[in-house]
Order: sequence, then structure tokens, then C-alpha cells
Amino acid sequence: MDNLSIDSLRQEMNEVNLTLLEMINKRARLVQQIGERKGKQGVDRFDPVREREMLNELIKHNNGPFKNTTITHIFKEIFKAGLELQEIDHQDALLV
Amino acid sequence: MDNLSIDSLRQEMNEVNLTLLEMINKRARLVQQIGERKGKQGVDRFDPVREREMLNELIKHNNGPFKNTTITHIFKEIFKAGLELQEIDHQDALLV
Repeated sequence: MDNLSIDSLRQEMNEVNLTLLEMINKRARLVQQIGERKGKQGVDRFDPVREREMLNELIKHNNGPFKNTTITHIFKEIFKAGLELQEIDHQDALLV
Repeated sequence: MDNLSIDSLRQEMNEVNLTLLEMINKRARLVQQIGERKGKQGVDRFDPVREREMLNELIKHNNGPFKNTTITHIFKEIFKAGLELQEIDHQDALLV
């Protein structure tokens, strides 16, 4: 065990949180860009085969400490949020 | 709009997924390290004030496209997974 204090660990966690925020939003922009190219509305953009492929890839690379079931759960929430974002985008487009 | 194809956007998304995986597990290790220092079992490690502070900081830095409510939802799932991990660690310690 190293000698890092709780304060310095929390500082490191704050930085990890902000990196996660940045990457989650970067992923959301990619979802939007892919959605625009596919030209379909939210509900049709759900691609279970592609989701399964991404989850398999993540599980293959998962070295913990989170278990595969936890990683799967968190990423499914991120995937779902991406789909919801596309539905909002589509609704906004209809209102323009 | 740029000329990136769906394939190249998906490739970029695969890379973002792996970075997210890495940062989520890095965060989990920090949770474990902080938990060890606090020396409490999982259920006592829930710190709603600290969670609120982290969420406020994330919302302050959120430039979208995800809304604050979505960011809050995703991070609450990540926080919850961290607490569950500590409970498992604690159970394992009891069994040693």
C-alpha cells in the first residue's frame, strides 16, 4: 500500500470523474454523428447486434476490479442514454 | 459535417469505449483505496455529501450533448457500482 492520503486520492478521483464526463460526452457526439449518417429516427437506431459486439469487446478487455456484469450494466446505461439523445434530436428536427 | 464514414466513427467509438472502461476501473481502484483508508464496511461508506459535491462539479463542467439529468443518472450508477464493490471486498475480508 502506498502513502497517498484520502485527500489526494479524492483529488485523483475528481480528475477521473472529469475525464469520464469528457469521454461520455465524446461518445454521445459520436452516437449523434453515426445517427445522422444512418438517417433513421431514435427507435430504429437500436442495434442489438452492434451493442452485443461492443459489450463482448469490453468484457474481453476488462481486467477489473469491476466484474463483467457491472461493466455490462454501466455500459448498457450509457448506450440507453445515447439512444434517448437521438430520440430528442429527432423530435427537435421535427419541430424545426 | 465532416466526411467521416460510419465505419471510422464506429472505430473511434470502440476506442472511446475502451478508454471509458479503463477510467471506470481506475475509478473503482480509487474507491477501494479510499475505502481501505476509511476502514469502514460498504454500507457505511456511502457519503451523500461527497456524492452531491462530485455531481455538482460534473454538472458545472458538463457542456453536453448529454443533459445534466443524464450525466447525473450515469454517474449515480457508477457510484452505486463502487459501493457494491466495497461490500464485496468487505465480505471477502470476512471470509479470509
